[in-house]
Amino acid sequence: MRIAVLGVGLIGGSIGLAAREKLNAEVAGFDPDEQLLERALELGAIDSAHRALVEAAEEAELVFCAAPVTALPGLAAEALDAASADCAVTDVGSVKREVIAALGSEGRFIGGHPLAGAETSGVKSARADLFQGARWYLTPTASTSGLLYDRLQRAITDMGARPQAIEAETHDRLMATISHLPHVVANVLVSQAATALSEEAEHLPEVGPSFRDATRVAGANPAIWGDIFAGNREAVAAEIDTAIARLQEAAELLRSGDRDAVLTWHELAGKRRRELIETEIAGGPLHELRVRVPNRPGIVAEVALELGRAGVNIEDMALYPAADMTSGAISLYIAGDEQAQRAEELVRALGHDVSRAE
Amino acid sequence: MRIAVLGVGLIGGSIGLAAREKLNAEVAGFDPDEQLLERALELGAIDSAHRALVEAAEEAELVFCAAPVTALPGLAAEALDAASADCAVTDVGSVKREVIAALGSEGRFIGGHPLAGAETSGVKSARADLFQGARWYLTPTASTSGLLYDRLQRAITDMGARPQAIEAETHDRLMATISHLPHVVANVLVSQAATALSEEAEHLPEVGPSFRDATRVAGANPAIWGDIFAGNREAVAAEIDTAIARLQEAAELLRSGDRDAVLTWHELAGKRRRELIETEIAGGPLHELRVRVPNRPGIVAEVALELGRAGVNIEDMALYPAADMTSGAISLYIAGDEQAQRAEELVRALGHDVSRAE
Repeated sequence: MRIAVLGVGLIGGSIGLAAREKLNAEVAGFDPDEQLLERALELGAIDSAHRALVEAAEEAELVFCAAPVTALPGLAAEALDAASADCAVTDVGSVKREVIAALGSEGRFIGGHPLAGAETSGVKSARADLFQGARWYLTPTASTSGLLYDRLQRAITDMGARPQAIEAETHDRLMATISHLPHVVANVLVSQAATALSEEAEHLPEVGPSFRDATRVAGANPAIWGDIFAGNREAVAAEIDTAIARLQEAAELLRSGDRDAVLTWHELAGKRRRELIETEIAGGPLHELRVRVPNRPGIVAEVALELGRAGVNIEDMALYPAADMTSGAISLYIAGDEQAQRAEELVRALGHDVSRAE
Repeated sequence: MRIAVLGVGLIGGSIGLAAREKLNAEVAGFDPDEQLLERALELGAIDSAHRALVEAAEEAELVFCAAPVTALPGLAAEALDAASADCAVTDVGSVKREVIAALGSEGRFIGGHPLAGAETSGVKSARADLFQGARWYLTPTASTSGLLYDRLQRAITDMGARPQAIEAETHDRLMATISHLPHVVANVLVSQAATALSEEAEHLPEVGPSFRDATRVAGANPAIWGDIFAGNREAVAAEIDTAIARLQEAAELLRSGDRDAVLTWHELAGKRRRELIETEIAGGPLHELRVRVPNRPGIVAEVALELGRAGVNIEDMALYPAADMTSGAISLYIAGDEQAQRAEELVRALGHDVSRAE
């Protein structure tokens, strides 16, 4: 199969590597940045480097457009012009409505979005297995060629990903709910705390683990998030509106002083979170173990190593150091009742105080 | 020194242990739960167990009230009745306005709040060093006896904590900003996602690391949080109001389509978060290292152990597993430029792809 990759950063480079390794494809690469193109060739992410888009695309059976979100509609339109009548063109943008509005009526274009790769950037981090097990959304429309959709889906599956068809609008709304809104909220919490603390300058306090967790993504990857906020602004703003309405209800509930109702609301949130997170985890219900430990170098290793030896996987972890960094607690998230039980015993045997968080 | 501890759970028990060990104090314990009282005696958290509050308090020079927030004003009032004219009475509640409104004009009462111990509960987890290095807020008023304040502050310092005087109202507002509001927001995000996802039932997606981090505290410790939300409802509701106003601004900003303004807002949040978090960390500016790793048992240990061997402390950590749990990324938060540089080299030498998050 002949594949073209337009844009050879982390995602484009990984598509090239995966396509060459897993599909035995011949990969033609294009990028306006010649150095990047050269680097992709050296890394084996592409078979041939092209300075003109049309050269890369004209003989391809499948074209992946892997540019920043705002550049995608233009890039994909160029690709459709350059590609043959029997070529499928797709993109990898994290918002989909705009590109589908522009190109959704073109039978050869199928929007796409692999959920992978936001952690590091640059072709140097590209890997053939970046998409292994990852959800890869596709947004076909009524105009989409069934033959080309089938070809694209097959290629994605062969690269190790799990394709799923979804409407562009639904996709953007879902991403707004589970990813874009939490980023906005993190930004707001940080700004609010910074303002409050500067007003109370004499009492600058430790901000604590709940604040750190809740705001971890504040200001993350400006290059990517500027595009996402621009590209999905309507859906994100709508999610913000909903969050505002829910916060108004919460404020009203708290002000009412109805302790039972507050508790019910609070407990329901805990229950729903477990349900949401558990849909992700294959190994059964998620348990949180709280371990009290001295916060010295090596302690995380000791605990993790002990679980590793026993084959117990840590799904997620959070550290809660005490203020002076001499002691603290670790939350370990373990999937499955038996695994969690085993982890609890192992950690206790190391001499640490461990308890199950409810 | 003779100390009374009224309520011998995690905090009360730890005060008893610390007072006996570090102050050489004689500790009288009271708890309405006789089993708990017995257990505290066995653990050496108290020297004597009393079924009547007055028995425990009447000869004390310092009384710590360590009951749930809602019970504190009543308990502290009883303690003041039982204690001598030369005895300081304090509490450990995480909200302060209510108890100060009730007892702030009593010269012997000084409100208190140690920032420690929310992770595990029960006297079985009590430790003499629970307060080591921890901030311990005290809320003296114009009526407070200087002599008794000095005695209390000295005892707290000797137990290893760092006392700081703060007005009750300021305290409650600060806690609302940096702790209570993030808990409310986590609950709201979870409820919103759960509703959205049940409406799109056929597309139940992976929720992703940003969602997991942002909602980690949703529904946490209902027993404690029911009290906090009740006791600090006005300040928390006011913080929610402010968050709503900021979210409205954010929605407006996004809808405006002013990409530069959005980016400025986003980058400022990242900058402010680093400033806020760095005030906590002694060892210099905080760096985030992103490490790509296979997500197999033992991998966290390998990385952490390597850093531990080199004496590099991990201030915070977050795991980002790929959807199929076969690969992922770890964010390591390291304080200080040199330490971060060293950590980067060590992790790279292990053969992992590591990059500095900006």
